[in-house]
Amino acid sequence: MKIINGGVTAPKGYKAAGIYAGIKRKRKDMALVYSTVEAKGAGTFTTNLVKAAPVLWDIKLTKESDNIQAIVINSGVANACTGDEGDKNNLIMAETVADKLNLAVEAVYTASTGIIGKQLPISTIVEGVPALVNELDESISAGTLAAEAIMTTDTHSKECAVSFQVAGKEVTIGGMAKGSGMIHPNMATLIGVITTDISISKDLLQEAISEDVKNTFNMISIDRDTSTNDSLFILANGMAGNEEITSKNNDYYEFCKALNIVTTKLSKMIAADGEGATKLLEVTVKGAKTYKDAVDISKSIISSNLVKTAVFGNDANWGRILCAMGYSGADFDPYKVDLVIESDDGSMKLVEDGETTDYSEELATKILSAKELKAIIDLKNGNATATAWGCDLTYDYVKINADYRS
Amino acid sequence: MKIINGGVTAPKGYKAAGIYAGIKRKRKDMALVYSTVEAKGAGTFTTNLVKAAPVLWDIKLTKESDNIQAIVINSGVANACTGDEGDKNNLIMAETVADKLNLAVEAVYTASTGIIGKQLPISTIVEGVPALVNELDESISAGTLAAEAIMTTDTHSKECAVSFQVAGKEVTIGGMAKGSGMIHPNMATLIGVITTDISISKDLLQEAISEDVKNTFNMISIDRDTSTNDSLFILANGMAGNEEITSKNNDYYEFCKALNIVTTKLSKMIAADGEGATKLLEVTVKGAKTYKDAVDISKSIISSNLVKTAVFGNDANWGRILCAMGYSGADFDPYKVDLVIESDDGSMKLVEDGETTDYSEELATKILSAKELKAIIDLKNGNATATAWGCDLTYDYVKINADYRS
Repeated sequence: MKIINGGVTAPKGYKAAGIYAGIKRKRKDMALVYSTVEAKGAGTFTTNLVKAAPVLWDIKLTKESDNIQAIVINSGVANACTGDEGDKNNLIMAETVADKLNLAVEAVYTASTGIIGKQLPISTIVEGVPALVNELDESISAGTLAAEAIMTTDTHSKECAVSFQVAGKEVTIGGMAKGSGMIHPNMATLIGVITTDISISKDLLQEAISEDVKNTFNMISIDRDTSTNDSLFILANGMAGNEEITSKNNDYYEFCKALNIVTTKLSKMIAADGEGATKLLEVTVKGAKTYKDAVDISKSIISSNLVKTAVFGNDANWGRILCAMGYSGADFDPYKVDLVIESDDGSMKLVEDGETTDYSEELATKILSAKELKAIIDLKNGNATATAWGCDLTYDYVKINADYRS
Repeated sequence: MKIINGGVTAPKGYKAAGIYAGIKRKRKDMALVYSTVEAKGAGTFTTNLVKAAPVLWDIKLTKESDNIQAIVINSGVANACTGDEGDKNNLIMAETVADKLNLAVEAVYTASTGIIGKQLPISTIVEGVPALVNELDESISAGTLAAEAIMTTDTHSKECAVSFQVAGKEVTIGGMAKGSGMIHPNMATLIGVITTDISISKDLLQEAISEDVKNTFNMISIDRDTSTNDSLFILANGMAGNEEITSKNNDYYEFCKALNIVTTKLSKMIAADGEGATKLLEVTVKGAKTYKDAVDISKSIISSNLVKTAVFGNDANWGRILCAMGYSGADFDPYKVDLVIESDDGSMKLVEDGETTDYSEELATKILSAKELKAIIDLKNGNATATAWGCDLTYDYVKINADYRS
């Protein structure tokens, strides 16, 4: 298993493109990922009751379509809360790409990200498709252009790839994602695309990604706002040439392990690049009675505005962490809790058995000043563990979101 | 029913005091409310699993004690996550007040608010009690001193009183509260004290306040952080001379109506004075299938960081409201939703049947620039209604909380 360069074009048989079509004012705004051969498609989508038009389309395809070869994505407008016209525009977007690539429309996933409640500028999109298809390329840099074109308030693009062996064949998984604001995934992140050349059944591909997000994309939060557009796609086109995985054998678990490396890395990149964020906060809860308790507590901590502002201020205000644990709904004994903070600048126990250790505030502030922080909480109540990722809450989060549409 | 001047000392038979004892650096930090005659006590308290020492004491008294005559409150230190020493210090605080007032210790509620995880400076508190008791006075201004002494990051004190008739007798209800940060009550607000001279049974007093908070203190949120110390107390000393209310007769409902005026006003004052807030946002959801749906949706909206920053930026970004409704867990049809915004500067429908009305952004910004905003949402799905109150999320929220302890 090794981390390699690139993203969605790293596996065999994938091309990508990212262009400026004119939806946004300046930055690239349309991306396309394309498998040159038939591919299995799976995905996980937002649990928000208000679902964007592309999400409804993708959920249908995920159930009904046996071949997904393209994913077309626009940024700038989310195509959410747009009624029948939104559904119609989404279909036009899929059809235009399908025509140009000689695919059935049911082979084209769509995704949109940006402002909610505005109609897609559909003629701009339709006019952009030929250029987008012309730019399709299998190079690493083409994958990067696609990763850049799906960004909204992200400050940088997010890509990752790994390669590993399955029964003597080299298999590759690549991925890209965008996050930034309205990030509290509850099935997937805002937009993520994973490509792989492994050969695997559609059912197991879906199961692998559905299980994986529980520990990765569903364990990040930037602002506790679950988006209307969360979509995580995975395509598997079989070009690695391995014998198709149709049962949960060793090859399947090897694939899951590699997938988890890609999704964990993308999840952490999203958390670290949250709107206005200056720091990545990783919270691990161990010694929980149940896995659900560990998940609920770690997510409650990374979602707390008061914890997030304290992290921004390098303030070891651990009472806010205990407070957020207490309202998580999970079961634990406050007077058994240990809390350790850790960064490249050191490690320190702040709380033992629910009370202060009378630590040095100076050293705590030094540890908290690092760009990547860990908080490790031991409940001493069982064996379950979970890790969640978040970021600090800063002036820039307010600035960006008080003025997002202008 | 009329709104009158004053707060906790407005009803007959109550005295109050607020002094600087030396717990905080400069501002007043100890308050006392005292009924000169025996009184029934009731209260509602935080549902956070991590409960401060005074909260555990008060829950016990509420169950077991038939006479509550004093409430002693300190600000600066929360006495939460403080172990056995915290419980001991809390008892000393109650005992010192009880001794000085010649009361049983079981007649003294306690409350603490401030930093979590620090022990109370108990000798400072013990030394402060004689001065506090000496200052007890029945004047309106003594009530104000108490209201000031319970403040933490509040920018002003919060008081309110009403008087009304029960069977020919004049009855008065007064109240004070503090809020500011860590406000997402789930039984009560951070600290609230209501006094009344009505004569009512203990059980009905408890029922009245428990029912009331569902529509008042439990319907506000500043930062979605449910505190470890939320406590709302109510004392009823019978000095109005009405026949004791022992059943849910007209007198009871008249009392509930008056109580609701006081608690609604205090709740709105807390929401408007949220940490860093510049605006009060009132969200009413009507046409819901169930009351719980209306509550969940309205609270989800006022708690959303993205809605709160848009309100700060005077931005009619209604997609964020629909998004927050969608992840509330409540059942509704997004394509039946109407949304109206309203302030002293006008009223305007932004959304009809889930889609934009193509409103004037200029007028919307004008309406949103007011200090008090209303959003009225009609789900057209039933007859249930609920109202929640919140505030905007500003640079100053980040500033205050990135630097709370220093």
